[in-house]
Amino acid sequence: MESRLTINENRFLRSIEELAHIGALPDGGIRRIAYTEEDINARQQVKSWMEQAGMTVRVDTAGNLIGRYPGKADNAPALATGSHIDTVPRGGRYDGAYGVLAGLEMVRVLQERNLYLNHPLEVIVFTDEEGSMIGSKAISGSVINDLACYRRDDGTDIYTCLERVGGRWENIDQARRDAQDLAAFVELHVEQGPVLETAEMTIGVVKGIVGQRRFTIAIEGEANHAGTTPMKGRRDALLAAAKLTLAINEIANSGGEQVATVGRIQAYPNTVNAIPGLVEMSLDIRDLSSEHLDNLLGTLRDRAAIIATETGTKIGMQPMLNVIPAAAQSHIQAAITKACEDLKLSHTRLLSRASHDAQEMAKVTDMGMIFVPSEAGLSHNAEEYTSPEDCVHGANVLLQTMIELDRHYGVSGKMRSVQVATQSYQSEESKR
Amino acid sequence: MESRLTINENRFLRSIEELAHIGALPDGGIRRIAYTEEDINARQQVKSWMEQAGMTVRVDTAGNLIGRYPGKADNAPALATGSHIDTVPRGGRYDGAYGVLAGLEMVRVLQERNLYLNHPLEVIVFTDEEGSMIGSKAISGSVINDLACYRRDDGTDIYTCLERVGGRWENIDQARRDAQDLAAFVELHVEQGPVLETAEMTIGVVKGIVGQRRFTIAIEGEANHAGTTPMKGRRDALLAAAKLTLAINEIANSGGEQVATVGRIQAYPNTVNAIPGLVEMSLDIRDLSSEHLDNLLGTLRDRAAIIATETGTKIGMQPMLNVIPAAAQSHIQAAITKACEDLKLSHTRLLSRASHDAQEMAKVTDMGMIFVPSEAGLSHNAEEYTSPEDCVHGANVLLQTMIELDRHYGVSGKMRSVQVATQSYQSEESKR
Repeated sequence: MESRLTINENRFLRSIEELAHIGALPDGGIRRIAYTEEDINARQQVKSWMEQAGMTVRVDTAGNLIGRYPGKADNAPALATGSHIDTVPRGGRYDGAYGVLAGLEMVRVLQERNLYLNHPLEVIVFTDEEGSMIGSKAISGSVINDLACYRRDDGTDIYTCLERVGGRWENIDQARRDAQDLAAFVELHVEQGPVLETAEMTIGVVKGIVGQRRFTIAIEGEANHAGTTPMKGRRDALLAAAKLTLAINEIANSGGEQVATVGRIQAYPNTVNAIPGLVEMSLDIRDLSSEHLDNLLGTLRDRAAIIATETGTKIGMQPMLNVIPAAAQSHIQAAITKACEDLKLSHTRLLSRASHDAQEMAKVTDMGMIFVPSEAGLSHNAEEYTSPEDCVHGANVLLQTMIELDRHYGVSGKMRSVQVATQSYQSEESKR
Repeated sequence: MESRLTINENRFLRSIEELAHIGALPDGGIRRIAYTEEDINARQQVKSWMEQAGMTVRVDTAGNLIGRYPGKADNAPALATGSHIDTVPRGGRYDGAYGVLAGLEMVRVLQERNLYLNHPLEVIVFTDEEGSMIGSKAISGSVINDLACYRRDDGTDIYTCLERVGGRWENIDQARRDAQDLAAFVELHVEQGPVLETAEMTIGVVKGIVGQRRFTIAIEGEANHAGTTPMKGRRDALLAAAKLTLAINEIANSGGEQVATVGRIQAYPNTVNAIPGLVEMSLDIRDLSSEHLDNLLGTLRDRAAIIATETGTKIGMQPMLNVIPAAAQSHIQAAITKACEDLKLSHTRLLSRASHDAQEMAKVTDMGMIFVPSEAGLSHNAEEYTSPEDCVHGANVLLQTMIELDRHYGVSGKMRSVQVATQSYQSEESKR
């Protein structure tokens, strides 16, 4: 196997261009919402390209579209890559599609030279990443048996949705996979943030995907006349909310790589001449360490108790979401780094602070992610942009990483280096 | 004239009860919105009571219902009292109506004993206090020539509204009055706040009606992904809003009698996983001194500039309302205080932090206000309550105050002690 195999730049960029026609909006954005006609048409296009590249294509019961390119040792566990081709209602052409098409291009390069790695290669198009992430969750066995969770905003149920893309809700358990079957999963994606651009780096070697916790915080005070109620004795819920917002910001800036955001706020009665009696606000906090998140939230609860006393209010925090952090295996990070060095590409280690299907795959097998820069950090936006040069560099790094991992893993089945991504991370943490 | 004339308690309380039937809601609240059938019926009831009490009744071009009881020197300027009988959509029975009916009861007591003060007495029912305050504004010459300002929420224009209550928009200037014609105006009202109840006092001697300034504050930052945007480099408009809310609260608590409130807040896009790029919030700030308000707002602008720099945001303050403070004349405060002492009623000086028709009357003549307690400070609320005892005490204080003022003012016309209430206040301030 020659080690400096590279992708066909023009063919790869043309594929990105072609797929972007499906669901194109007049303003340059893309609307390819999961399960819609645009999503189905795009799946059909990718399936056809996969077949042309010599892949065997199947759709699992979760609607995941899986292309498989044989390895020399065809009983060996597969090396997998992939991402998604659905979009938010007005998204861009790179988020998701870029990683799928880079995986496809990697296989095209091998096939046209009649090359095979030792391991089979898989390119996976996951179902509904921008919504329920049901595709990768089905593979990791994390789908919950609650139909209401998967109902679409337009009321369509999950039976109907999965049927449209060739899946089958009743048999969704059959989509589950394990480490005997998948040696590793590596996802290539645009960063969706400004870190690489700011650092002027071409490639991001992802250390892990942060955990996310979301809360609705309710602050109960007492509504009253803004004129006739003296300052002393007020129980102003918005004043308490302001103090809490500052406390959250201080905690977010207290060292470490966490981010924390109050994105939503609603005051009641919300009129100019009344002291707010009730405020509801959201908290979104993310970090790679569950333990660190626990500590930060403990500090926040202490601060909230003090603020409640100071302002005469009652503060309650209701958990709304808990996404467990997923660490990237160090040998996969090493393989990506080696690929960057061989290709003479600038690179840096960073966190993924957004969700990806890779976080579900980390529950199943070894996981890694490769990022390329997003101009101005823009994402979920028609103006999302990654330069053609960076697109090509990222695809070449993916190709070299898979070749490196092909050497790393034995071909007679494998034991996962660790069983659960978070445990791996925590043990690494405890070493520091 | 005997000095311990007192009102007829049962008759007075019965009048409050009877007027409360007009516009009564099933839950005990009152809905008697200006210009509606309920308002018109209530005006008819009060007019009929005024006539039975020996008053000459007229309606001016602003729809103000004015009952006049003759004085011994009938060419002398009148001593006036009054308030309003319109309500908010779900108000109580005391706000406004209490002061009107106390004035009526005062005249009834005089008339049944065939007593006359030196000065004529007037009881004024002002038009639309809860909305435009057009009645008292017409008397002070403050109505602006802009029809849109006086259009009702239901679209009815001011021509039609005034016609319903016997006024005439085209001739509204004719409602204007001056100090040659009105010696003084004293308004009796429920406090609408908790000060008297908290201090366990029966009567409030009002020092003045605070000025109000209202602003819409717009904070422009940059909306961005709550996960992928590092803490450093965020331009979080809600963080800036929180800092500004705390600055406003600190300024409100920095000594003095001012109150300041952020009652309304709206963040954009207002979703859990986006940093707010824009926040609009309201500021309502009130104090008896325009100069002090200027100083506080100057301090706030300095703080806002620092916060804008700290947070990378742009902060703009748009004035929405400016109500000039109105001081109560010290000799009227003295007359009220003497009445309380004669009647052995506990009393304290306090500010009116809500708007009243008296603030417009202060532009015309000497002004004073008498407050009685509001249970729990509740106002604009069906649960608004003042005890019968306190209602009676307040009415007796009004009666004694008018008798005292009758002695204070000469009968051969008068010069106002000062021309403009605010100037008076400022000169008093500068003496401190």
